[in-house]
Amino acid sequence: MSDHQLSELAQQLRVDSVRAAAAAGSGHPTSSMSAAELAAVLFARHFRYDFERPDHPGNDRFVLSKGHASPLMYSVYKAAGAITDEELLTFRELGSRLEGHPTPQRLPWVETATGSLGQGLPVGVGIALSGKRLDRTGYRVWVLCGDSELAEGSIWEAAEQAGFEDLDNLTAIVDVNRLGQRGETRHGHDLDAYARRFRAFGWHVVEVGDGHDVDAVDRAYGEALSTAGQPTVILARTLKGKGVAATEDKEGLHGKPLKDADEAIEELGGIRDLRIEVHRPDEAQEPRPASAGHLQLPRFELGEEAATRDAFGQALAALGSARGDVVALDGEVGDSTRAEYFAKEHPERFFEAYIAEQQMVANAVGLASRGWVPYASTFAAFLTRAHDFVRMAAVSGAGLNLVGSHAGVAIGQDGPSQMGLEDLAMLRSVHGSTVLYPCDANQTAKLVATMADLDGIRYLRTSRGKNKVIYGPDEEFPVGGAKVLRSSDSDRITLVAAGVTLHEALAAADALEGEGIRARVIDLYSVKPVDRDTLREAAEQTGCLLTVEDHHEEGGLGDAVLDAFTDGRPVPRLVRLAVRTMPGSASPEEQLHAAGIDAGSIAAAARLLVEHAVAP
Amino acid sequence: MSDHQLSELAQQLRVDSVRAAAAAGSGHPTSSMSAAELAAVLFARHFRYDFERPDHPGNDRFVLSKGHASPLMYSVYKAAGAITDEELLTFRELGSRLEGHPTPQRLPWVETATGSLGQGLPVGVGIALSGKRLDRTGYRVWVLCGDSELAEGSIWEAAEQAGFEDLDNLTAIVDVNRLGQRGETRHGHDLDAYARRFRAFGWHVVEVGDGHDVDAVDRAYGEALSTAGQPTVILARTLKGKGVAATEDKEGLHGKPLKDADEAIEELGGIRDLRIEVHRPDEAQEPRPASAGHLQLPRFELGEEAATRDAFGQALAALGSARGDVVALDGEVGDSTRAEYFAKEHPERFFEAYIAEQQMVANAVGLASRGWVPYASTFAAFLTRAHDFVRMAAVSGAGLNLVGSHAGVAIGQDGPSQMGLEDLAMLRSVHGSTVLYPCDANQTAKLVATMADLDGIRYLRTSRGKNKVIYGPDEEFPVGGAKVLRSSDSDRITLVAAGVTLHEALAAADALEGEGIRARVIDLYSVKPVDRDTLREAAEQTGCLLTVEDHHEEGGLGDAVLDAFTDGRPVPRLVRLAVRTMPGSASPEEQLHAAGIDAGSIAAAARLLVEHAVAP
Repeated sequence: MSDHQLSELAQQLRVDSVRAAAAAGSGHPTSSMSAAELAAVLFARHFRYDFERPDHPGNDRFVLSKGHASPLMYSVYKAAGAITDEELLTFRELGSRLEGHPTPQRLPWVETATGSLGQGLPVGVGIALSGKRLDRTGYRVWVLCGDSELAEGSIWEAAEQAGFEDLDNLTAIVDVNRLGQRGETRHGHDLDAYARRFRAFGWHVVEVGDGHDVDAVDRAYGEALSTAGQPTVILARTLKGKGVAATEDKEGLHGKPLKDADEAIEELGGIRDLRIEVHRPDEAQEPRPASAGHLQLPRFELGEEAATRDAFGQALAALGSARGDVVALDGEVGDSTRAEYFAKEHPERFFEAYIAEQQMVANAVGLASRGWVPYASTFAAFLTRAHDFVRMAAVSGAGLNLVGSHAGVAIGQDGPSQMGLEDLAMLRSVHGSTVLYPCDANQTAKLVATMADLDGIRYLRTSRGKNKVIYGPDEEFPVGGAKVLRSSDSDRITLVAAGVTLHEALAAADALEGEGIRARVIDLYSVKPVDRDTLREAAEQTGCLLTVEDHHEEGGLGDAVLDAFTDGRPVPRLVRLAVRTMPGSASPEEQLHAAGIDAGSIAAAARLLVEHAVAP
Repeated sequence: MSDHQLSELAQQLRVDSVRAAAAAGSGHPTSSMSAAELAAVLFARHFRYDFERPDHPGNDRFVLSKGHASPLMYSVYKAAGAITDEELLTFRELGSRLEGHPTPQRLPWVETATGSLGQGLPVGVGIALSGKRLDRTGYRVWVLCGDSELAEGSIWEAAEQAGFEDLDNLTAIVDVNRLGQRGETRHGHDLDAYARRFRAFGWHVVEVGDGHDVDAVDRAYGEALSTAGQPTVILARTLKGKGVAATEDKEGLHGKPLKDADEAIEELGGIRDLRIEVHRPDEAQEPRPASAGHLQLPRFELGEEAATRDAFGQALAALGSARGDVVALDGEVGDSTRAEYFAKEHPERFFEAYIAEQQMVANAVGLASRGWVPYASTFAAFLTRAHDFVRMAAVSGAGLNLVGSHAGVAIGQDGPSQMGLEDLAMLRSVHGSTVLYPCDANQTAKLVATMADLDGIRYLRTSRGKNKVIYGPDEEFPVGGAKVLRSSDSDRITLVAAGVTLHEALAAADALEGEGIRARVIDLYSVKPVDRDTLREAAEQTGCLLTVEDHHEEGGLGDAVLDAFTDGRPVPRLVRLAVRTMPGSASPEEQLHAAGIDAGSIAAAARLLVEHAVAP
């Protein structure tokens, strides 16, 4: 394509963006118009991709970090022949693949869902890590960012990771159109401000004074391609709403279709039907290694004292030996989460994010998009830092294993800043998630292996301290199941617990039995999905149910249990024990007692419920 | 104090840190030892503070961003005469004020809870903003950071805000001791790497090649004090575990008491009892303006169509007129959240965080610590970005008003990335929080005013689209209450809803009545705390209960309702409607229908429950 044709193509992308938004009656055409030349030159000249084989291992990867510029993306798809003009005009309609913000669940050419700003570049870094360290099929990763989103700290976590890892297969393209949603950005058109920041983080910087000059843009891409040893950022000065006098560089038009689309289309030179011949990638082999061997999970002796975090680390290392597709990530706490066991055995498949939990999850999303099976771990409390990334990973349909250690008040002296007390609520509320909370080492090992092959977001909650091993190493723990550990025909109450409180519940059941009160005990290791049948049966047979969790009372195990009783049938009596106060520093035993979730508190609550039908 | 005395004082802080951790049997002495000179020189020579009047408006503010170095902090308190040696040795004991990580809930000299890394500097920026733009009593903010935590993106959000706002009242001190928790940091002792980054963000940088040289440290503080127009960062090269051969610059000793504390204390020159005479601040007036006038909330007509986000913006602007202590913050979406109404009327009390939700909340925490009443708003979906900051704000006991707009699938075409579907779960699980979800404009206005004076984290969920005004402008909405909107002696079911689904529930009740099924309708505007009595009474009188929410089924309104039935008494029949599928783009009406939470779906579920006692 000649430079003139490229300019014409850019105009076509503008026109089609305007048309799509006009048809939808909503959307972000002005944010698309600023980046038209950036997209035209990239896709016509430099991007290597087989639209018929989106899983081609040699394909370059494009991420639209400014996800609201989806009309531009879809206009490119049309120009590349991937979608028809008719489909383009279904933009934002019910059932259309062309959503307001693109998602890979609907479109095979989308690498990751965007729309929450500041996430595309981090995930692009994850894909580039995959390309550089694991896949090695020579693909490049191109990420189109907005300038507004550079305010997100996650962008700088990504910049740090990419600079440190010398990701010269990564190019970030920043559409510096000066205008955010509600007015000017902090730095307006000051390209140097951004240049200083990226350079400081170890990036090669190319400034393009006119991002609508196709030749200048082309040269910038060439410079990115020829830069070795560091990632490149192209900072392109552009105008929002470019090409139409009524919108060009104007405030107050973010996220709005053009007022007079027909007039704008005419001003842009009318409808065109230019086609992009996107370069095909070279043939490449899928880099996924075959299964390496038989899985030999760690085995713990019944009665042994072992921490579930230790079992996690050992099981993950074993899984890594058996499966070449398993990778691990951590946030500079691998000695605490025990991810370091994997790191020591499989350093080539271990990714250190340092203390940057958003980037850790973004790396995992990027690796998952390339077919790897990631396990990302940190303290349960600090997974809250990456909540928005986890939420968006669910929108992507990404398969991630997240592991949160140091759950609950049971960690002891370190105090509330380190205690995961909201993690179950957070992970349960993620669409399509699985939430697992083991109480012993053998159970943990089995669940670590099981979760690898589930869909969506899988969460495993581990504990800091040691607990007695209560299951044999060959016991199975299906997701969605529960274990009834104590049961008799004369049970007068059911205690439901998981993790550390399961051991307290067992001790409470012993104490109650000594007083003549038989208690059923259920290990609810699968917090989501929950075993409705077992819970319903136990509640009906024993008449009442007491849940106990080392978590705040909202959204955790207690709520998971209640979920079993929303089927329209009458519900037996329920009481819930959970952490209701703000803990301070204290020993693990003191913490459980102070929170009212130790064996003594459980037994006391059980007595009240059985004998007086009231909650403590 | 002479330089020699300062060095002695630093050794004392080391000794006391070692002693405190030894007494506790846990804690982070080596992280304290690296920063001993940094602390000694600051508190003996430059910090201005009245320990007897922690609320003195002229006090400098110190934030320990590396919160795990609490032994150092407590050793300073002892040297300053604020605590006794006996109390120092209660470190990390049950009931002690000296927690593993410091919190203002226990100690009056702590500005904000730390322990989740990368949060102290952001909150320090918020305090400095307060000092610079509102308080103007001349205090300075000093933040002691670790080097590991500079990997957190939140640090760079803070750096961006501080640089942009020319916060020359702020000094960040980075204890570059090279070692993180599990090994070396990305940049080790490369001070220049950090210098480049801070400089790029507009900071004045002072590098101290030997952070144990009290004279060099003293000069660095002097340079910070004399720097105008920009914040200063002091990058000090230090050694972790400094002063004890067995720990100095050694890996693997993070978060561990010294093996032989007695020997280490001897090596450090033994126990001392030097005292710091901390400079008192000049007298200053509390800057909080008196109440400015009578609150005139916006009033909406019954039957009028109005969006709750509009009512929020108008009410907040009115509240700002009536109360001089109210401030507002937004994340570059003020035109959508309607925080711009406040910004236009009270620009001097409006804080723009651009697209940096963590910093937005950190600014709010900082402002709240100085006595201001902050309202921080963004899309409900994007509040998940700041989850860890909200969690830590609760540990601080900070009083924050958070407002999440664009809740639920009802936003329509923009799709799932923009839909808050986890926000109720997230905010309910925060310790001590209040969660409010109004369905009409007058209710919103009243709740905006009410929430100002509550304790802890207050959350208001607003909606994008317009709904009919169903309450008069003088109706009251107590927190913890609910409104019974339809009720008769022959009700056979109770519909519980809030926000947009409340209107759907009313329409469903109309349809059901036409079929001879009377339904009670409850507006659960107070999601937390929940009105247990009204819910219990309704369930018992009508026999069954159907909850409907524009939120995922976990952790939201349905779970809040179930909370009312965990008192040990039998529970009537329950069914819950919520968003269970991944939405795409569609109109608001199509979205509600597709999610099964529109009037038709509610009526259908109600029929099933009433007539067949089953869930859909």
